[in-house]
Amino acid sequence: MSHKLSLGIDLGGTAIKAVVIDESGNILNSLQVDTPPGRAVNDVTQAIVDLINSLYRDRPGIVGVGLGSPGLVDEGRKIIRFSPNFPGWQNVPLWKLIKEQVSLPLALENDVNCFALAEHHWGAGRTFKHLLGLAVGTGVGGAVILNDQLYRGSSGAAGELGHVSVDLWGPKCPCGNFGCVERYLGVQWFIEAAREALDDDQISAPDQVSSLAAQGNQNAIAFLENRGEILGSACVSLIHAFDPEAIIIGGGIAQSGEPFFRGIKRAIQERAYPVLADHVQVRSAKLGTSAGAIGAAIIGFETGSLL
Amino acid sequence: MSHKLSLGIDLGGTAIKAVVIDESGNILNSLQVDTPPGRAVNDVTQAIVDLINSLYRDRPGIVGVGLGSPGLVDEGRKIIRFSPNFPGWQNVPLWKLIKEQVSLPLALENDVNCFALAEHHWGAGRTFKHLLGLAVGTGVGGAVILNDQLYRGSSGAAGELGHVSVDLWGPKCPCGNFGCVERYLGVQWFIEAAREALDDDQISAPDQVSSLAAQGNQNAIAFLENRGEILGSACVSLIHAFDPEAIIIGGGIAQSGEPFFRGIKRAIQERAYPVLADHVQVRSAKLGTSAGAIGAAIIGFETGSLL
Repeated sequence: MSHKLSLGIDLGGTAIKAVVIDESGNILNSLQVDTPPGRAVNDVTQAIVDLINSLYRDRPGIVGVGLGSPGLVDEGRKIIRFSPNFPGWQNVPLWKLIKEQVSLPLALENDVNCFALAEHHWGAGRTFKHLLGLAVGTGVGGAVILNDQLYRGSSGAAGELGHVSVDLWGPKCPCGNFGCVERYLGVQWFIEAAREALDDDQISAPDQVSSLAAQGNQNAIAFLENRGEILGSACVSLIHAFDPEAIIIGGGIAQSGEPFFRGIKRAIQERAYPVLADHVQVRSAKLGTSAGAIGAAIIGFETGSLL
Repeated sequence: MSHKLSLGIDLGGTAIKAVVIDESGNILNSLQVDTPPGRAVNDVTQAIVDLINSLYRDRPGIVGVGLGSPGLVDEGRKIIRFSPNFPGWQNVPLWKLIKEQVSLPLALENDVNCFALAEHHWGAGRTFKHLLGLAVGTGVGGAVILNDQLYRGSSGAAGELGHVSVDLWGPKCPCGNFGCVERYLGVQWFIEAAREALDDDQISAPDQVSSLAAQGNQNAIAFLENRGEILGSACVSLIHAFDPEAIIIGGGIAQSGEPFFRGIKRAIQERAYPVLADHVQVRSAKLGTSAGAIGAAIIGFETGSLL
């Protein structure tokens, strides 16, 4: 009995996570290191190479490595075009830098694409052919799966759903656009708006708001519903554009609980074409914080099987 | 030398247009009748059947018939689920009603999908694999072509791009959503807003505004640029979601000239990710008012070749 294994790596702003999985999605090993302070290209590259070497030593059955990275990944040219959380990363040839030290097949992919792939394979999206993934955390990331395939667009940038605008006259987003959904739900703006809505300057993390809501604080409940309605309104535009079967929502803020999802679903019921509102499923992601690394490992299997 | 021909029909609110084309897209016949007043299902069906019979008599080489219809077309079930400009049309089995009287292979498709297919085959979209089509006229219709294929979504409703919202707090659209791009650019609202912007209650058609703009009326120019910027802002969200190579814009209001397109392009340059703004092409449709019927005929060829 032969077991093919794949290694997936999820490069994040604070940590680099790695998993080794088998073809059924079972996690055989997992390892995590801090992202090097300063996030210099060479330091990050070395940390990734060390992770790969350390896991490959234990698991020689690994057939490929997938690496999920934030930002715009040019899958063809194998570079990070830019990455909002990695200052100075412009057209970084990360694939080449790693391949100079690692002989395993390697593929680079956007981290939210990895998250959505994982949920599609083994999580909340398993039964759907056409789905959108939204990862609501530090920022708001998105991914598009059509006909069971990741849709990457004409230059590898499709699925930047956090930069769909809900208000063309809204506040400016660092990306250059106005009223982006990320500008209301990304953690920094979520906290800023929560402080105002709850009149409480002590709020420093989204889970404080969900705790207050769980304790019955009506302002906290209303705030979470409101953030859900804003995200849900963006979902309505995406439903009209993509007609997906499901929208899978993950990331830290998706842990905010029932009021947040109630707001999302209410916006869809009230605003989308009725036939589509009844058709689309909104689901909470199931695979937790390992989804990105698991999805990267799926990409690793694909790359490995090309040889 | 055998010539395969196809018959395409474009069902509109005021006219039903039909063309017979060959495989190079040359129009061999064209015919147009008024849409029966009242738009009753039986009357419309009979008018379409009469058009098919009359053209088939002259052109026995026709291998299939494509019919483009406004509204949500359920391609699988071959019905019109609903159609905003055809009051009372709910789940109309148009395919079956026509097939009872016509033996040729027949396929039903959304009319804006037909428009985009035609532009993709022989018009402004010919060189692009991934494109969005927007038809800005009575309403704002949309279509999505990915990897050279029409993308219909999970229930045949993808590409309802006129009901992408640019302002979740904006005016209510008859579709149920708020701030839809159609609510600013559909002809009725275009005229209403133009009357206000130009302080002129005599305006009753978009081309009056373009005439004024062509004569140098600064308010008319500014108004057209503004409408372009609103449409362009919706395009920015679509660019971030789909990463298309091109956006093809047709329909009556797309004839408004240079200021309108300048507004669209300015919004994209100012708001989209710079790498995507530089990458995407915004083009005016080329095939004019026959695009819908030509695209329907492309669908006719596809249906005919299935036999």
